[in-house]
Amino acid sequence: MNAAYTRLKTRFGRIAALGEAGAMLGWDASAMMPAGGGEARGEQLATLAGLGHELLTAPQVADDLAAAEATGDWDAANLDLMRRAHIRATALPTELVEASTRANSACEKIWREARRTSDFALVRPALTEVVRLQRETAVALSPALGLSPYDALMDSFQRGVTAAEVEPIFAAYEAFLATALPRAEEIQARRGAAIPLTGPFPVPAQRDLARRLSIRMGLEADHSRLDESLHPFCGGTPTDVRITTRYREDDVAQALLGVLHETGHALYERGLPEAFARQPVGEAAGMAAHESQSLIIEMQTCRSDAYLAFLGRELRAVFGGDAAPYAADNLARLWRHVGRGFIRVDADEITYPAHIILRFRMERALIAGDLAVADIPGAWNEGMQKLLGITPPDDARGCLQDIHWHDGAFGYFPSYTLGAMAAAQLMRAARAAITELDAQLAQGDASALLGWLRSHVHGQGSRLGFQDLLRAATGKPLDPADFQAHLTARYLD
Amino acid sequence: MNAAYTRLKTRFGRIAALGEAGAMLGWDASAMMPAGGGEARGEQLATLAGLGHELLTAPQVADDLAAAEATGDWDAANLDLMRRAHIRATALPTELVEASTRANSACEKIWREARRTSDFALVRPALTEVVRLQRETAVALSPALGLSPYDALMDSFQRGVTAAEVEPIFAAYEAFLATALPRAEEIQARRGAAIPLTGPFPVPAQRDLARRLSIRMGLEADHSRLDESLHPFCGGTPTDVRITTRYREDDVAQALLGVLHETGHALYERGLPEAFARQPVGEAAGMAAHESQSLIIEMQTCRSDAYLAFLGRELRAVFGGDAAPYAADNLARLWRHVGRGFIRVDADEITYPAHIILRFRMERALIAGDLAVADIPGAWNEGMQKLLGITPPDDARGCLQDIHWHDGAFGYFPSYTLGAMAAAQLMRAARAAITELDAQLAQGDASALLGWLRSHVHGQGSRLGFQDLLRAATGKPLDPADFQAHLTARYLD
Repeated sequence: MNAAYTRLKTRFGRIAALGEAGAMLGWDASAMMPAGGGEARGEQLATLAGLGHELLTAPQVADDLAAAEATGDWDAANLDLMRRAHIRATALPTELVEASTRANSACEKIWREARRTSDFALVRPALTEVVRLQRETAVALSPALGLSPYDALMDSFQRGVTAAEVEPIFAAYEAFLATALPRAEEIQARRGAAIPLTGPFPVPAQRDLARRLSIRMGLEADHSRLDESLHPFCGGTPTDVRITTRYREDDVAQALLGVLHETGHALYERGLPEAFARQPVGEAAGMAAHESQSLIIEMQTCRSDAYLAFLGRELRAVFGGDAAPYAADNLARLWRHVGRGFIRVDADEITYPAHIILRFRMERALIAGDLAVADIPGAWNEGMQKLLGITPPDDARGCLQDIHWHDGAFGYFPSYTLGAMAAAQLMRAARAAITELDAQLAQGDASALLGWLRSHVHGQGSRLGFQDLLRAATGKPLDPADFQAHLTARYLD
Repeated sequence: MNAAYTRLKTRFGRIAALGEAGAMLGWDASAMMPAGGGEARGEQLATLAGLGHELLTAPQVADDLAAAEATGDWDAANLDLMRRAHIRATALPTELVEASTRANSACEKIWREARRTSDFALVRPALTEVVRLQRETAVALSPALGLSPYDALMDSFQRGVTAAEVEPIFAAYEAFLATALPRAEEIQARRGAAIPLTGPFPVPAQRDLARRLSIRMGLEADHSRLDESLHPFCGGTPTDVRITTRYREDDVAQALLGVLHETGHALYERGLPEAFARQPVGEAAGMAAHESQSLIIEMQTCRSDAYLAFLGRELRAVFGGDAAPYAADNLARLWRHVGRGFIRVDADEITYPAHIILRFRMERALIAGDLAVADIPGAWNEGMQKLLGITPPDDARGCLQDIHWHDGAFGYFPSYTLGAMAAAQLMRAARAAITELDAQLAQGDASALLGWLRSHVHGQGSRLGFQDLLRAATGKPLDPADFQAHLTARYLD
């Protein structure tokens, strides 16, 4: 560790502190800010982002990166991540960055109207421009990062996994789905309908229960908050995590399972290595890794038979009523219901990957120039028919449903399913290491699981890319077999 | 307006945006943040402050200030304020700034223990160092700003008024007090005791009422929030003002009048000139000006007979019970009670200035080197005896009660009483301009008053110093006669 590296650590620490300030102001904008504060908040966030960019692209940085030496796994990885951040910030011409920002912002606005009126033609010109600039960006980043153009985009969301690795994994899943989905539907039909949970579920009681379960899952009250926002998220900083949700009096599942999902994200942030706080290597490993942590809590843990037994008791203790609707088996029928739907965010565990596979293939083709924007609706509907056997009745329930592409986010979608698969793989490894895991979960006790995740995932920060993280934690790179085994055990046995 | 001035406007806009971000994070730290977020919040705030300082002291600033030209009152004043900010940021050696920051922080910590144990000797060494560094600071700033050393300190809280102007005003008040206070006490004794307001006053109802009255006073719901914190304050930014308070079930006055006080501050921020948002001239004119706006709402407006009649009706509508305790006359006896006390923050309108006069004279002497730190307790108790005829039983209720000096804030205290006097003077001018003001206030309607303040104070930003602001609004500089007339009418007639 020489002086140049020490200077870089100081500099990246300031950049990260600006990022933390921005994260807090972003949370505030969603959870607290009165509408009238929006314009000034935009100025504040733009200033923080601009100063962060200036710190990252100052001439001194290139000099320091050239002279920096760092020894040991952690500092070497940290220095490497500094280099990559610098490349990302400097490899693109300013005009391209600005044109992209403008195009994304314009397209996103038009998309809201296009989705409302289910009118793809309305957004087509703006989306064409967004895709053109994303292709330019991908091509410009590609040589600097030593990645294919699409991988260069994907890399900004999740480092250490390539489209060439993802495609066969997704293809294997597609084959699995072809037989698994009809079979799951058949078993589900045989088991009969669930008893509905009838509310009302008063919001203060929901809030208290969600907070209590979040804390019981291991999130420290002194380092977190739970608030409300239109779009639930996990924000804030590693020592001060801010979860938001929204409540409906007639539906207890949305907020409760939503908070537990965000708790998974929050626990990841809480477990990041303190010794590298506000350093690149001290951050979470990427979006797929992050999604693996929300899903290992929400899907692998909280929707397990064992935890549902605990959850049913807790719910009934708070909201009262008959025992039958709160039985684990009934909750499983309610909250693990499988169905072919048009909307990704409403999809179940089995069909969700189909929505992602469709988007992954299409965005790869868009970036490669093999798919024209004008052909998106047709390709979308064809893909839905092929993967799930259904055709959206309109584009609002088809290619217009997601904000991502219309906001310039290409390479993000795979993270959802890579995360779901990684969650299953990590859970299998954790289960092998923890005796009596289900008995613990049946008491709502996830501490042993959390301990395992702390050492194998959270505490690793960004030291390793996605595949290497899985290798170190489970002995192998991403293996869709573990996810399929999980689904088979849960839905098909 | 040439290019150099335009560059400066951009730069000061960024500095102000950083300040706004810091203000929001400061609010969050007091009102929202879990304890575990404190350390990281310190890093975030230090980074924002550091970057703001770097922007203000960059070599380019001196060049631009030398070349800048601005025409018109507003831009000329803006440029002048930029120069003054630059002088403040560059006139002091870095070592002095850092030594001062360290000394203040160390002393403040020791002071908490010293106050708890009423042990002045404990804090004396640390306070001696703070005073020494404040004197050095004052002496260094003095020539650069063209002000006496003490005025250079006072100027950082309130521009445009000097100690030489303040001293005769305070002397006049001291003479007034000598006869006014005994007479007020005598009248009060003759009128007999008030009927106490007996709670409990449920907190949610207090909160709703306080918020409603704050909004009725003219604070837009879309541009403000009301939350809780240990130490009530008004924070945030001009388009997103954040008021905090604290509630006691057995005392409705503390939160209610506290919120109305902070509403005065908030209305000032809301009324600042939008055309100069995030520019020096677009900020509030100083701490005395700010206090004049909280006090014109709390003291001049809300504790007036007219408004108390309205307030009594509102309170009774919410909390019910007999009519008698809520009669305006009874509320006046409760909330305009006069008494000689040791504690500044608990003081009434008449005796409050005595607490300030004492501190003003002592801190002037400390900075001039005419008073040694070791002699503070003696001088304090002597001053209290002379001004109010009482002697604190211990230093905790004497010279150790306030954080200000122990945190390095010298020159701040006069703002409280300059604000109280300015509030009376502004109210008198407003009253002359607005027919039927009391009839409006009796309906809780302060819109005409707010309109007058918007044009004569709020909308003036920092264009004028304190005395010039008063001259423009009322036709004369600060005149203690208006405050004395107010007190005479309220307490002595």
